[in-house]
Amino acid sequence: MGLPENDKINIVNKYRKGKKNLITDVPGVKVGHVTLRSSDKNIHTGVTAVVPAEGNLFKEKVAAGVAVLNGFGKSAGLIQVKELGTIEAPLVLTNTFSVGRALDALIKYMLEQNEDIGVSTGTVNCLALECNDGELNDIRGMHVTEAHVREAIDTASEDFDEGDTGAGTGMICMELKGGIGSASRTVPLGGKEYTLGALVLSNFGVAGNLRIDGVRIPAKAVNTEEGDKGSTIIIIGTDIPMDSRQLERTASRAAASLGRVGSFMGTGSGDIAVAFSNGNRIKHYGDDFTELKTISESTVDKVFEMAVESVEEAIISSLYHAHSVTGIRNKKVDCLKDVY
Amino acid sequence: MGLPENDKINIVNKYRKGKKNLITDVPGVKVGHVTLRSSDKNIHTGVTAVVPAEGNLFKEKVAAGVAVLNGFGKSAGLIQVKELGTIEAPLVLTNTFSVGRALDALIKYMLEQNEDIGVSTGTVNCLALECNDGELNDIRGMHVTEAHVREAIDTASEDFDEGDTGAGTGMICMELKGGIGSASRTVPLGGKEYTLGALVLSNFGVAGNLRIDGVRIPAKAVNTEEGDKGSTIIIIGTDIPMDSRQLERTASRAAASLGRVGSFMGTGSGDIAVAFSNGNRIKHYGDDFTELKTISESTVDKVFEMAVESVEEAIISSLYHAHSVTGIRNKKVDCLKDVY
Amino acid sequence: MGLPENDKINIVNKYRKGKKNLITDVPGVKVGHVTLRSSDKNIHTGVTAVVPAEGNLFKEKVAAGVAVLNGFGKSAGLIQVKELGTIEAPLVLTNTFSVGRALDALIKYMLEQNEDIGVSTGTVNCLALECNDGELNDIRGMHVTEAHVREAIDTASEDFDEGDTGAGTGMICMELKGGIGSASRTVPLGGKEYTLGALVLSNFGVAGNLRIDGVRIPAKAVNTEEGDKGSTIIIIGTDIPMDSRQLERTASRAAASLGRVGSFMGTGSGDIAVAFSNGNRIKHYGDDFTELKTISESTVDKVFEMAVESVEEAIISSLYHAHSVTGIRNKKVDCLKDVY
Amino acid sequence: MGLPENDKINIVNKYRKGKKNLITDVPGVKVGHVTLRSSDKNIHTGVTAVVPAEGNLFKEKVAAGVAVLNGFGKSAGLIQVKELGTIEAPLVLTNTFSVGRALDALIKYMLEQNEDIGVSTGTVNCLALECNDGELNDIRGMHVTEAHVREAIDTASEDFDEGDTGAGTGMICMELKGGIGSASRTVPLGGKEYTLGALVLSNFGVAGNLRIDGVRIPAKAVNTEEGDKGSTIIIIGTDIPMDSRQLERTASRAAASLGRVGSFMGTGSGDIAVAFSNGNRIKHYGDDFTELKTISESTVDKVFEMAVESVEEAIISSLYHAHSVTGIRNKKVDCLKDVY
Repeated sequence: MGLPENDKINIVNKYRKGKKNLITDVPGVKVGHVTLRSSDKNIHTGVTAVVPAEGNLFKEKVAAGVAVLNGFGKSAGLIQVKELGTIEAPLVLTNTFSVGRALDALIKYMLEQNEDIGVSTGTVNCLALECNDGELNDIRGMHVTEAHVREAIDTASEDFDEGDTGAGTGMICMELKGGIGSASRTVPLGGKEYTLGALVLSNFGVAGNLRIDGVRIPAKAVNTEEGDKGSTIIIIGTDIPMDSRQLERTASRAAASLGRVGSFMGTGSGDIAVAFSNGNRIKHYGDDFTELKTISESTVDKVFEMAVESVEEAIISSLYHAHSVTGIRNKKVDCLKDVY
Repeated sequence: MGLPENDKINIVNKYRKGKKNLITDVPGVKVGHVTLRSSDKNIHTGVTAVVPAEGNLFKEKVAAGVAVLNGFGKSAGLIQVKELGTIEAPLVLTNTFSVGRALDALIKYMLEQNEDIGVSTGTVNCLALECNDGELNDIRGMHVTEAHVREAIDTASEDFDEGDTGAGTGMICMELKGGIGSASRTVPLGGKEYTLGALVLSNFGVAGNLRIDGVRIPAKAVNTEEGDKGSTIIIIGTDIPMDSRQLERTASRAAASLGRVGSFMGTGSGDIAVAFSNGNRIKHYGDDFTELKTISESTVDKVFEMAVESVEEAIISSLYHAHSVTGIRNKKVDCLKDVY
Repeated sequence: MGLPENDKINIVNKYRKGKKNLITDVPGVKVGHVTLRSSDKNIHTGVTAVVPAEGNLFKEKVAAGVAVLNGFGKSAGLIQVKELGTIEAPLVLTNTFSVGRALDALIKYMLEQNEDIGVSTGTVNCLALECNDGELNDIRGMHVTEAHVREAIDTASEDFDEGDTGAGTGMICMELKGGIGSASRTVPLGGKEYTLGALVLSNFGVAGNLRIDGVRIPAKAVNTEEGDKGSTIIIIGTDIPMDSRQLERTASRAAASLGRVGSFMGTGSGDIAVAFSNGNRIKHYGDDFTELKTISESTVDKVFEMAVESVEEAIISSLYHAHSVTGIRNKKVDCLKDVY
Repeated sequence: MGLPENDKINIVNKYRKGKKNLITDVPGVKVGHVTLRSSDKNIHTGVTAVVPAEGNLFKEKVAAGVAVLNGFGKSAGLIQVKELGTIEAPLVLTNTFSVGRALDALIKYMLEQNEDIGVSTGTVNCLALECNDGELNDIRGMHVTEAHVREAIDTASEDFDEGDTGAGTGMICMELKGGIGSASRTVPLGGKEYTLGALVLSNFGVAGNLRIDGVRIPAKAVNTEEGDKGSTIIIIGTDIPMDSRQLERTASRAAASLGRVGSFMGTGSGDIAVAFSNGNRIKHYGDDFTELKTISESTVDKVFEMAVESVEEAIISSLYHAHSVTGIRNKKVDCLKDVY
């Protein structure tokens, strides 16, 4: 993993970077990858799981919000987050046609962990998030299985790779090799140090639009022919106590980050942002009333700016960590470091 | 005011009615009317103010949510409630063309009460809500003044009239005389008795669609010619501690009440529901963090059903309390009790 | 199928009923069921497919809108409908834990039909809609397979059953046996006769809240213990030319229908409405501009009222056509006709 | 007006700039200003009117969409645009406390132009949009009158000034003098040249966050103390035939532009974008059906990118054209050209 490289990324930062500059700097957050790569079978895809907190997520949910920045996307599980303001299962990122498999695997995983679901209590909401890696990957082959999804969850840890790995294996961003990127920021609030981190799956944009820390990076010859057919999944996690309304607002700020790196949120780019806080755990079996701690409106701008910084840096980080690849139909995509 | 009449309204009630069966059964809530009526000048309009809590509303806001059931309406102030989840000024209901005046009067009132607004702190959000009374009232004459708005706020109390009074003076509902209606319900939660109340300004629907406690009331000859050109404003107040997301969900349940009385939410009917809880006061000048008490998800159905019952009953109550009238262009509108 | 019974349902109708009083009265719409029922294995579930139009749906999409009346639900595919205003695949209804399987099957079906998807063009959006039948069905057993989903699509026709069949096999509504219901209305517009139909999967409500054509139906002893843990899926189809904004507005009117039959949209009830018009086909491969015919705003109230009537009647029809059943954990649910 | 200066602004442009690089390059669009400036009375405010098309706007509305990027704002008239997808009156921009006056003036103007409103047809929806200029202006004095609003509408023309003029007189952006900015782009579609233009009222951001064409501009000493208490109003106009859904999507892309210039959409910044197309006129009095021409989904990315470019450039242009000023409470704000 490229911490030194990561530090070379000179993105504006008012806020102090977290220890690893990864979303897993947020206490309790874990990330796992399964990478499927077989050049002769044109397989360039995978699964990335984000576990938002320790313990039983269904019995102690995390507060959450969603922003659908552009809804050309097939991600599942978002409407319940919007309605109830909670996440109660690990989040899974994969390719577009594998959302069904991911849901199936997630449901089975949650049923195993919770014998009450579907018996003495109702159902469970799972988030399966996706980008289209069909430019490089044999996406029609549907190579992701339930076992892959399960493995990504089971192997999630505080250390994880960025770049063309996991769900990011076959992704393309601004006609450069994209994939998984992450970054984090810290802030003192009420006498305690809190962390906010972002993880992105970058698969958006058109050649020639990239801006790194604002500086425009002109397109190179090889990669100029395509429209914006990708997507972005943006996960923002924090231990700052926040409620769902505040988290939805935080998620919506990811649009500013997309703008900063040069995106115009193309019609075909399913740009989805999910924000959660494990600083509030909401009990599934509760009393009549719940006590909730939330950041005050007068302080929330710090969270917004940390989020915008982290997401911008995470996107650029996904490009820095990726490698050039040749995929299906002989499609060649260069990585940032090979071109510039 | 017609408490005995109110009791004759046999709307389904699982929940116990409040003492007066009015929104002012919620502790701290006050309502004030100014009625403008002059048959020779074709004036049939007015102002109704709802004060959601005791004390300085700007410094200690109430939690709130909004549901735009049908957005053919000119009500002002809603988008900030949706974003910040609070109400920080009295709510004013009036006719469509008087929203500007109402806003102007509300801003001046709030500036008087708060010397910091526009100086050491930013601005203030005011809700001016409206229905179109132009079928009966000389609405083009714009007869509501800032003084009327101010008077409605200043005279708000726990006792108020229903029917063709205040903002309800010129309203028409299902081609019967509509106007102001109110109802309330109580529930024990966590060992304490709480109240939820509704106030509606009824001005919607087409002749022949009315259902009272489900029973269809056929149209009478005189009132059958019009389409749905009206609107409804629905205010739901409670002292149950709730957050903005829960209040937005509560507000959206008013659509079920509208369905029960026979509305199909016609395109021209600006159907707007606002829900607030003064069981949570959110401080304008706060620390980094806030503690918030909220009802649990497992208990919130009680609030939803109390709201649906109260709004249904409040609509019917607006019809029960109104009187027949002849307005501009010799338009005659019968009241429920004169027809049936 | 119970046409005679259907006619006995005396729901208010201003608009003329379609020939079969089913959603398939809309030209081009087809419905297919697969019913899984095995009392000794506690299987009471199934799949229902709605095909919204003739021809290649991906290449010629139908205009569509979505209303999330209450988002406690796991239905997939909705956010793209909201963004792009189109449906491009058959709709599949099933139980909550089978959404993954349904998506998988739908994607494979669409890939078979369209060799360009995932190769020369991007991805395909599929709607998998769900209610929780876990009160009667061994939902944890996940008995729905991809083959079942495929069969429901392949056998879709203009004739289909209502009641405890297909996805409705294990559903409960107001503590009575629920399931699939349908109804339709016709209207002359611009000199031509058009049809609007509704299909519902009824699985909501609490005992004692039912209203049939407004008349309250008191609960019977056997079925009174449960909260609102269900959901409703509401499909509205029409050949009236409409755009996505108008269809979204039409879908939102289903809340009035839910109110009329006694729902208060409980927190646990994922109430989702989808409306489509096959009177506009939107080409996947188009020119710079498209010509679209839409109903005028001044006429759209007819569509709204037809929708509210049809959905109300479809819900009641689902109860009329269902049969009493004993399911998992010996749960017994009576049907309407056995109780009243 | 500063065309030469405007040309010096080196913002990324894939698309050709319009003739004047102003929103009024869109045929039919006119802009008018009234500037109120009196240093001894601490008045630094004004009104800007945008007339979106020729002819009677009420009888022939323009298609429109709205994106509430951050709803901490008091702008009026937005919910009806969202519901009906049309604008039917001139748009007025002014300071926060003058929204009431602006609405009052707009309603009177529309009643004068249309004798049917409030008599034989219903009401009229007017947009009064605002930012808070209270840092420089005696906003509590409420110095904008109805006559000022009327004058801005009546004097609207194809030529207009940018910078600290009209509604922009007292605005602050990134702790530099902000105000009115504009830009435009052209594109050939279906064999014809079309134009899209943006007009912004810039009043957002914190010192040190500004990026001009991506390049970070460090804060100067004088202007560093404030949080983000401002707002932005963004108007996007075009003659490209589009429907309301497409225009809403276009408006939402303004978030990318805000990100590019350094905004993180602070909690106190009411960031509102309105997009309209006068390439479609929607008749108030229509037949059962309407024919609508719209840009195809496969081409709409051009509109999105033109919008993102135009809004970014319009914001920077507002800074380039403004002048340093000393306002109320001796607040001094430097302009971009005086500092750098």
